[in-house]
Amino acid sequence: MTETDVVNFCMLTGNWLELHSNVEHAKSSLYGQRLVQGSLVFSIVNAMIPFDSSVLAAFYGCDKLRFLRPTFIGDTLWARVEVADLKDHDENHGVVTSKLEGINQRDETVLRCQFSLLIRKSRLDHPGEPPKIQAAREESKGENA
Amino acid sequence: MTETDVVNFCMLTGNWLELHSNVEHAKSSLYGQRLVQGSLVFSIVNAMIPFDSSVLAAFYGCDKLRFLRPTFIGDTLWARVEVADLKDHDENHGVVTSKLEGINQRDETVLRCQFSLLIRKSRLDHPGEPPKIQAAREESKGENA
Repeated sequence: MTETDVVNFCMLTGNWLELHSNVEHAKSSLYGQRLVQGSLVFSIVNAMIPFDSSVLAAFYGCDKLRFLRPTFIGDTLWARVEVADLKDHDENHGVVTSKLEGINQRDETVLRCQFSLLIRKSRLDHPGEPPKIQAAREESKGENA
Repeated sequence: MTETDVVNFCMLTGNWLELHSNVEHAKSSLYGQRLVQGSLVFSIVNAMIPFDSSVLAAFYGCDKLRFLRPTFIGDTLWARVEVADLKDHDENHGVVTSKLEGINQRDETVLRCQFSLLIRKSRLDHPGEPPKIQAAREESKGENA
C-alpha cells in the first residue's frame, strides 16, 4: 500500500478525511500516523482473489467485515481465501461464500470477512471473440493436443 | 459513476475483470453491459457519509452488505445513512453502527449494509494547527460572537 494509492483513493472517492490525508492531524490520531482507508484495504484484498471471468456474474455481498489491525503506508498485503459455502440462487446462478483474510508482512490479519459472489452455472466461452482470434486459438489447441 | 471512475478503479486495484473492463465480453454477461465494481460502489457510497474528523478514529467494520441492483456507467448515486446503534468499545472509544443505503436516480436501492465506525469519546481540537492559524481562528471567533 503506497502513499500514491492512498492519495489516488482520496481523489477517486472525493473523501479527504484528515485521518488519511493530513500528516499533522494524523499525528494526534489513534495510531499516530495516516491510516490507509479501510475501503481501499478491502478493495485491494478482494481484488487479489483469482477470479474466473467465464463464471463470475456479480459481487453478491459481504458479511462480518472487520478491520482487526490498522494498515499503514508502506505495508504489503496478501490475501487468503477459502471457499466456505455453496448455495443455489436461481435457475442459472449460485452464490459462493468464501472466508477472506487480508494479512500483512508482520503476519497480522488486518481484515476478515465472508465474501460472496454470484456465479454462473454454465460457462461463458470466450464471448465477443472475433473469428480470426477464435480460429487461431482452435489451431493452437490442436497443436498442443 | 463515470467510465473514468471504473477504469481508474481497475488501475488502482490491478483487477481488470472482463465484467468491468471488456465491452464485448460484458454483452454476454448477466446485465448485457459493463458493471461498476461493487467495491467501488461501496467505497463511493460510504465516502458520502458526512464524517467528523474531530471524532472519527477508524473504520470498524461492515455487516450484511448486499448489492441489490446493478450499478452501470452513467448512474448517479446518493447515500442515505441513519444511526442504528451505539456501543461502548474501550475507555476512549465507542462503535457507532449505521444503516447505510446507496440509492440511484431510478430510486432503486443498489446497496444496503450496516456500517460501523470507531468513534473517539473526546474531540481532537484542531491538532497540528500552526499558532498563526490558531490565532486567526480565535480572532474570527471573537468577531462572530
